[in-house]
Amino acid sequence: MNYIEGIGFIAAVLTTTAFLPQVYKTWRTKDVSSLSLPMLFMFFVGIVGWLIYGVLKQSPSMIFANTITVVSAFLLIYFKIKYRKR
Amino acid sequence: MNYIEGIGFIAAVLTTTAFLPQVYKTWRTKDVSSLSLPMLFMFFVGIVGWLIYGVLKQSPSMIFANTITVVSAFLLIYFKIKYRKR
Repeated sequence: MNYIEGIGFIAAVLTTTAFLPQVYKTWRTKDVSSLSLPMLFMFFVGIVGWLIYGVLKQSPSMIFANTITVVSAFLLIYFKIKYRKR
Repeated sequence: MNYIEGIGFIAAVLTTTAFLPQVYKTWRTKDVSSLSLPMLFMFFVGIVGWLIYGVLKQSPSMIFANTITVVSAFLLIYFKIKYRKR
């Protein structure tokens, strides 16, 4: 692994970890009032785009980061639909 | 611009745009209670890492996306420090 991928992996760990407390908080409180479904969906599609980009650029750190974040974003969309007021 | 950068730019627009309503909402409401300073700082350093990675990989779409998101993350840190309860 070269030093560029080293920087990528540090960035990957920081940005994916920063996202996890939101997922945990939403799961625990079931409070999805401040989450916007169109915004979550836009973010999800964007992350899928970055994942495809990472695969095409053969970037291990981008594939690693965006695979985790795709799951996080998917969970938030799932919580939003499951827990929203009917 | 090749098609890989095309996918990158679509991803860049989606993920940076999804982040802007949070910045606007925080600026308008001055409610920073649900924002965590350590988490914001970790996210900010991570995005700086992705920006450096994008420069080293000579990726125009990563440089574009992460420059905008660095500014967004910086503004959230600034609001958090400015508007937190004393």
